[in-house]
Amino acid sequence: MTDILRRGRLGATDDEVDGFLSSFGSDRRIFGADIDVGRAHVVTLAECGIVSEDDARAILGALDEVEEGGFDALDGTHEDVHPAIEAEVVERVGEDTGGRLHTARSRNDEVATCIRIALRDELLGGMRDVLALRSALVDRAEETDDYLVSGYTHLQRAQPTTIGHHLLSYDAALERDFGRLADAYGRVNESPLGSAAFAGTSFGIDRERTAELLGFDRPTRNSMDGVASRGFAVESVSSALNASVTLSRLCEDLVLWSSHEFGIVEFDDAYASTSSIMPQKKNPDTAELARGKTATVHGALTATVTNLKGLPSAYNRDLQEATGRIWEAFDAARSSCRVLAGVIDTAGFDRGSARATVEDGFVGATELADALVRETGIAFRTAHHVVASVAEQTDKPTADDVRDVFREVTGDALELDDERLENALEPRGCVESHDSYGAPGDEGLLDEARDALEADMDTLNSLEEDLELSEEMLNEAVEEIR
Amino acid sequence: MTDILRRGRLGATDDEVDGFLSSFGSDRRIFGADIDVGRAHVVTLAECGIVSEDDARAILGALDEVEEGGFDALDGTHEDVHPAIEAEVVERVGEDTGGRLHTARSRNDEVATCIRIALRDELLGGMRDVLALRSALVDRAEETDDYLVSGYTHLQRAQPTTIGHHLLSYDAALERDFGRLADAYGRVNESPLGSAAFAGTSFGIDRERTAELLGFDRPTRNSMDGVASRGFAVESVSSALNASVTLSRLCEDLVLWSSHEFGIVEFDDAYASTSSIMPQKKNPDTAELARGKTATVHGALTATVTNLKGLPSAYNRDLQEATGRIWEAFDAARSSCRVLAGVIDTAGFDRGSARATVEDGFVGATELADALVRETGIAFRTAHHVVASVAEQTDKPTADDVRDVFREVTGDALELDDERLENALEPRGCVESHDSYGAPGDEGLLDEARDALEADMDTLNSLEEDLELSEEMLNEAVEEIR
Amino acid sequence: MTDILRRGRLGATDDEVDGFLSSFGSDRRIFGADIDVGRAHVVTLAECGIVSEDDARAILGALDEVEEGGFDALDGTHEDVHPAIEAEVVERVGEDTGGRLHTARSRNDEVATCIRIALRDELLGGMRDVLALRSALVDRAEETDDYLVSGYTHLQRAQPTTIGHHLLSYDAALERDFGRLADAYGRVNESPLGSAAFAGTSFGIDRERTAELLGFDRPTRNSMDGVASRGFAVESVSSALNASVTLSRLCEDLVLWSSHEFGIVEFDDAYASTSSIMPQKKNPDTAELARGKTATVHGALTATVTNLKGLPSAYNRDLQEATGRIWEAFDAARSSCRVLAGVIDTAGFDRGSARATVEDGFVGATELADALVRETGIAFRTAHHVVASVAEQTDKPTADDVRDVFREVTGDALELDDERLENALEPRGCVESHDSYGAPGDEGLLDEARDALEADMDTLNSLEEDLELSEEMLNEAVEEIR
Amino acid sequence: MTDILRRGRLGATDDEVDGFLSSFGSDRRIFGADIDVGRAHVVTLAECGIVSEDDARAILGALDEVEEGGFDALDGTHEDVHPAIEAEVVERVGEDTGGRLHTARSRNDEVATCIRIALRDELLGGMRDVLALRSALVDRAEETDDYLVSGYTHLQRAQPTTIGHHLLSYDAALERDFGRLADAYGRVNESPLGSAAFAGTSFGIDRERTAELLGFDRPTRNSMDGVASRGFAVESVSSALNASVTLSRLCEDLVLWSSHEFGIVEFDDAYASTSSIMPQKKNPDTAELARGKTATVHGALTATVTNLKGLPSAYNRDLQEATGRIWEAFDAARSSCRVLAGVIDTAGFDRGSARATVEDGFVGATELADALVRETGIAFRTAHHVVASVAEQTDKPTADDVRDVFREVTGDALELDDERLENALEPRGCVESHDSYGAPGDEGLLDEARDALEADMDTLNSLEEDLELSEEMLNEAVEEIR
Repeated sequence: MTDILRRGRLGATDDEVDGFLSSFGSDRRIFGADIDVGRAHVVTLAECGIVSEDDARAILGALDEVEEGGFDALDGTHEDVHPAIEAEVVERVGEDTGGRLHTARSRNDEVATCIRIALRDELLGGMRDVLALRSALVDRAEETDDYLVSGYTHLQRAQPTTIGHHLLSYDAALERDFGRLADAYGRVNESPLGSAAFAGTSFGIDRERTAELLGFDRPTRNSMDGVASRGFAVESVSSALNASVTLSRLCEDLVLWSSHEFGIVEFDDAYASTSSIMPQKKNPDTAELARGKTATVHGALTATVTNLKGLPSAYNRDLQEATGRIWEAFDAARSSCRVLAGVIDTAGFDRGSARATVEDGFVGATELADALVRETGIAFRTAHHVVASVAEQTDKPTADDVRDVFREVTGDALELDDERLENALEPRGCVESHDSYGAPGDEGLLDEARDALEADMDTLNSLEEDLELSEEMLNEAVEEIR
Repeated sequence: MTDILRRGRLGATDDEVDGFLSSFGSDRRIFGADIDVGRAHVVTLAECGIVSEDDARAILGALDEVEEGGFDALDGTHEDVHPAIEAEVVERVGEDTGGRLHTARSRNDEVATCIRIALRDELLGGMRDVLALRSALVDRAEETDDYLVSGYTHLQRAQPTTIGHHLLSYDAALERDFGRLADAYGRVNESPLGSAAFAGTSFGIDRERTAELLGFDRPTRNSMDGVASRGFAVESVSSALNASVTLSRLCEDLVLWSSHEFGIVEFDDAYASTSSIMPQKKNPDTAELARGKTATVHGALTATVTNLKGLPSAYNRDLQEATGRIWEAFDAARSSCRVLAGVIDTAGFDRGSARATVEDGFVGATELADALVRETGIAFRTAHHVVASVAEQTDKPTADDVRDVFREVTGDALELDDERLENALEPRGCVESHDSYGAPGDEGLLDEARDALEADMDTLNSLEEDLELSEEMLNEAVEEIR
Repeated sequence: MTDILRRGRLGATDDEVDGFLSSFGSDRRIFGADIDVGRAHVVTLAECGIVSEDDARAILGALDEVEEGGFDALDGTHEDVHPAIEAEVVERVGEDTGGRLHTARSRNDEVATCIRIALRDELLGGMRDVLALRSALVDRAEETDDYLVSGYTHLQRAQPTTIGHHLLSYDAALERDFGRLADAYGRVNESPLGSAAFAGTSFGIDRERTAELLGFDRPTRNSMDGVASRGFAVESVSSALNASVTLSRLCEDLVLWSSHEFGIVEFDDAYASTSSIMPQKKNPDTAELARGKTATVHGALTATVTNLKGLPSAYNRDLQEATGRIWEAFDAARSSCRVLAGVIDTAGFDRGSARATVEDGFVGATELADALVRETGIAFRTAHHVVASVAEQTDKPTADDVRDVFREVTGDALELDDERLENALEPRGCVESHDSYGAPGDEGLLDEARDALEADMDTLNSLEEDLELSEEMLNEAVEEIR
Repeated sequence: MTDILRRGRLGATDDEVDGFLSSFGSDRRIFGADIDVGRAHVVTLAECGIVSEDDARAILGALDEVEEGGFDALDGTHEDVHPAIEAEVVERVGEDTGGRLHTARSRNDEVATCIRIALRDELLGGMRDVLALRSALVDRAEETDDYLVSGYTHLQRAQPTTIGHHLLSYDAALERDFGRLADAYGRVNESPLGSAAFAGTSFGIDRERTAELLGFDRPTRNSMDGVASRGFAVESVSSALNASVTLSRLCEDLVLWSSHEFGIVEFDDAYASTSSIMPQKKNPDTAELARGKTATVHGALTATVTNLKGLPSAYNRDLQEATGRIWEAFDAARSSCRVLAGVIDTAGFDRGSARATVEDGFVGATELADALVRETGIAFRTAHHVVASVAEQTDKPTADDVRDVFREVTGDALELDDERLENALEPRGCVESHDSYGAPGDEGLLDEARDALEADMDTLNSLEEDLELSEEMLNEAVEEIR
């Protein structure tokens, strides 16, 4: 290659240093974005009279060819994808024309713009993946709405609930995760293009126009900030991580539930593996690996933050190393989310085994205490004392057990007929009576979940339509010149 | 103490275990919140007819006394602040009355509600601190709007800008940080109260009402999610960390600028220290320590994420350990922000030293290349080649140097009169001509910064007013019963 | 206070800045170390003729008084503990004498020395705590050596083992953790004292002597490295974290085993808690909290690394913020280790429930395949195929089931008598036959564990004796002057 | 492919799930190790009479062919490299022979063994890279031993030192980093092979023998620990990170020193870059990127720790995800180390600019105070007060300035002749007089550095020789059968 950056300035490097400095490995991700940035930039340069229509036309043609050739056709000995594409353009149309592509921009704003475009796609894709998983959760929740199961705290059987209610708890958490991705999108979707190296430019460019053509909501408002800040990456990766932590907790529940001991769920074969020497095994590998990938997303955030901390203004080469971490985070989080949607979709929930978890372990203890409060008027704390003493003696108490302990603790006879007492001890009734807002007995929960899902789908669709509109606008502007 | 939780159920622990399990150390932070949660809960229990007005009145009176006594008057041998307060109430008004405070709630929803209330205050405080720093930055930017200084990339002198433009770049970054805190606030400000242990309750409580009395926007929509999720903590700490990274970069610039070599800023004595043995030293310790505190915020996020990853539903005691990390993060980030506002407010920017940084190092090279493009019509990449060759020879070129190299590289004479050439090489003109949107020569920048600041102040004020209104509502509801 | 550092040089700070800069909060930890450093330094100054014996005697007397007064008697308005102690000495014996304490040292080497001394104690304490837990594990392993239990992979029942073998797996991991703490100790235990600010001193001091008096193995070999490096902190916290991860895995097993579903272990009351509203619960809170504290140690490491990354030479104030993280890490890791020793010591392992886990789930499948290989000469992979097909049909196969499938897969009759077949399917025999080195049937395991434990105890004792000897040496040197 | 693991047991997966579960991407790294593990295992099976010599011979032949074919010839649709290699063997020599390769081992011990072998190479390579950098540092230190330069604390000029002393400070830090890698090597270099799934095996294998053939120091002592623990990965990555933090600090100094303002070092062209639009720039990109890669190593550690925390015994699929992080850490840390050796080797240190940093900024202040103590007998703290007052007035004091202030502060005339006073103010003399052990004036420093370097080279050579011997032993054992 002819090194269009170093010529006339610096001597040669060697292969090891080239490999060290190169970001080609992760630049595949922004190849398409860089072509589009080139298009929008050249169109605007022509519209502003900074390059001639003829030069613009030639450059646009060359960009089409480079795009068609694809990333793998680039000369990988360049430092990164940006000079590689520029060099291809120069080679096709000559330096006197192609050498005008980089007018009024710098690699600093160019790369920041490309990263934001590629990240935008990851955010939208991530939102889509989250919605797919939520959709699976809500569908299966509807089906398992009346599958009784114990809820656990401290991994101890605690109170009866349903599998449906449990699955909806993850849908509720993922709704917030969706919101975080959407909020991050808003701050990512600003255009640094035209910030040049950090000081803007003396050419009469139109940053509003390139922003619009590339689907950005607006240009960033300070040119130094535009190239130096990567807070948008920290936020995006944080949001992916937050969602990933939600997934890891779902995975933990699935792994537990698929154990022989719990036996509440069986993975579909397509989402399980067996052992190289223990052929009886059916392992929930997909859930384990998704849980493990949360760690990878966490690592990506740590790397991003550690990279940025304490860097001086404006651009520093350290930043190059941070970019790859963004893609690693989204790859890990998104693939996990998609696979888990399949796991949930196909999981076999075992109504009988689930039911078995509420049949001992005295999971009705809290409801019994509440019933004592309601029916006898004693204070909750006293009722708690009574029931604690019952629990100390048995984990499957009869009505008589309760009566005996009640007298022992309070000194009074328990004025409560057997039917009510047994009702309190019966899981089905217990779940149904827990009908406070958001509780397993609240009948509106599913509808609310479906409404929330639909609202978020609308949000996502609208963001995607905006991008499609800007693509059309860019195409038209290109056609105008062609 | 009488252990109101363990009696009748579990034998004694020893001091080491008590100390290990206790969260008293960080519970000071939620003492006030727990009192208010108790008030809103009891008021609503009375309004719903679950406890009598008499009992409610007595409990409210006891809560007043406990509040007055303060956190330090509590019996620190309880596991945490929640049973400690309940025990105080019971002691004052008897178990038959005080024992009703915990009706229809659990420590799980209680603590989640308290954390959200305390965190809400940190988020609002954090927003306020960010605005104070932005205000200082904008004020000083106005003053130093025409202090020429070199901008740096790779810590090399790059192009001329102004100190004002540089300071505004931090204001622009902090605007996004403010937005993140505000978005986190929206997801924190939902009430889990009434989720009880995770399964809600069979008492006919009104979660909308307690949410309203405590200033929350709405109750959380799934009771298991309400007690098990701490994604709101991850998001809040992430937002604090993102802001803190911005601060660390500002600090790095300040430390560099205050070195003898750069000499651009002198810290006010109040924000500097000297050495125990090198008395000539004036050290920018406040900025260094603020930079160091970014690391502490990062540690808090790592701890929070590592804690939550892979926890099964619903509540696990691990969560207790996560809470303290939230406060550490906000303490470190907020104190840094406040101190830096003072640093900026009082910093002495040295116009002469700043100016010196644009006087050699050939910082006008880019503008020279751009001028060659504009004035002679050659392609940018060719102009870059010319200027690179100039740079190879001298870092303070004269017009003649440029002419010589131009001919050498292009084969042509440079058709450009001396005045224009010298203008291009002159920093002041260079900055003024860089007037693209967001660039140092853009005259609208300061107004835009002030507008953005005002808009965010309005946002913050409105959130604070909402909280004040809910406080009044709670007071009235309490008075109603009293 | 009279500010002995700022006087004549810098104006006043305000309270907020003082609070921000102060490290007094975590300096309690190094108070004793600083007194000893003062002693060793003054003794050596006198021995080298840099201060007179009279001055040294007076200073040593003052140091005794300051030590007796204790940390809380110091004037907390000083920046940190070092000038606070020096000021106390000056106040007691006058500046003309006390002002000689800081001759030939700087706060930079002083604080680095103090941190190493305090950290040394944490490392030794940590080793002691690890040994206590290992001792508990080995004791209980001996007792439960023949308690059959299923081992799990992917949380699925896999193959039979014993509780004893399981407990010893943690002992083996903790042996390496001990080794890491010991190796860290070796690199911590070097003395930076005499490095002064970073450039050493022109006074004729004897760094070997102060190192010896303070129990260090040697002085650090470069004065700039001595004050600027905190790699010893990264390593120590990493070692604490590594041990803590081991603990978290033990905790996870304990929490699982204490669930109703597994039912293999019951925590002693002293290490369990109950619920505020679910009185039937007995929660393994100590293990959960210890698991959660691993996250805190992880946060401390992240903070330490983020702090140090990219700091220029030599001392920067950021370092102050890192010190507190070391103590947080060791507090969290060590308290968890101690409490878990108690948990293990007192845990009730349930032989019957443990045994139940090997009675179905076909945990003998691997041994059956191995037996088929040994007894019939077929290849392992073929045997795996046979047994996998058995597993597909039943999870509690009879000898006839095996015969049927064998013929189906291989086309041949199974030439193996019933007794041998049933032996292979029987857990007890299976465990006993697994007698390869390190396996549950290896009878030498316990002895090896005890030997390793004893060897590490010897290592620890010897390190502690070295410190005691140096304490005596310091006392004698002080007496010499007194 | 025929799925030799799932057949007879589980139905099919789909492509997305296969891609999700596959570790093929990072298995290239352990391909060679797995072949060797296969050889050592089969040889030992034959020696122990578990497989026949004929079968062993055939399998060894097949393994040779698979090795020759290389990683890329494997069928990538297998879950990972282990069944892929086994399937190749089976295909070549038939299941009745090839199906015996996996006798008495499991994928769990196989993969743990392979990771340790590959990691061992990274550790040795890392040690070699560290030694290369240290060698460059020591060589350049010898050359710049008398280049005066200011040392900095808080980035303020502090006291004079030399570039050589400064470079040796990094050598000293890297000596400890070498030690950490070596200590990690000791704990990595134990063989889990024969632990099988976690319960060992009933075949009469010889774990000592396979350990020896593969160059391990010994077999791990508990079979469950052998497959479940990844503490060795945490330690190795921590050690790489600690070294990487050292490198990042060196980078920071290099970046600062190469700025126009400091001007102390110029990077060789081969290690610098220029800008896409600012042709005058010569940027220290290699040092910046190496600094940025520290963040990547940090991310790898966070990911590893987060992955392992709280995993139950024994093997879980999460672990697969952790392995890739180890390689990322070593790739980033080692490439940085190698490139920095080149940077240091070729860096141009500018004696004049370095000298300029000690010519103002009053860097002799400490030595002046020390001289006042020595020559006039006043206390250090009083001398500090005098010099602080001098510094308040000027940063380039004359002898008369000192005299005036001395009288002002102490009330006495300064009894010190001009020559001595000026000596104290003169940087060269100041450095030479700082001859305490480890200080810039200590003449033994270079020799000590060379000795330490040589000792570590011996350590490394000896470890490498051990591995070569074991390779020969394996080859001989293979030949024996062939």
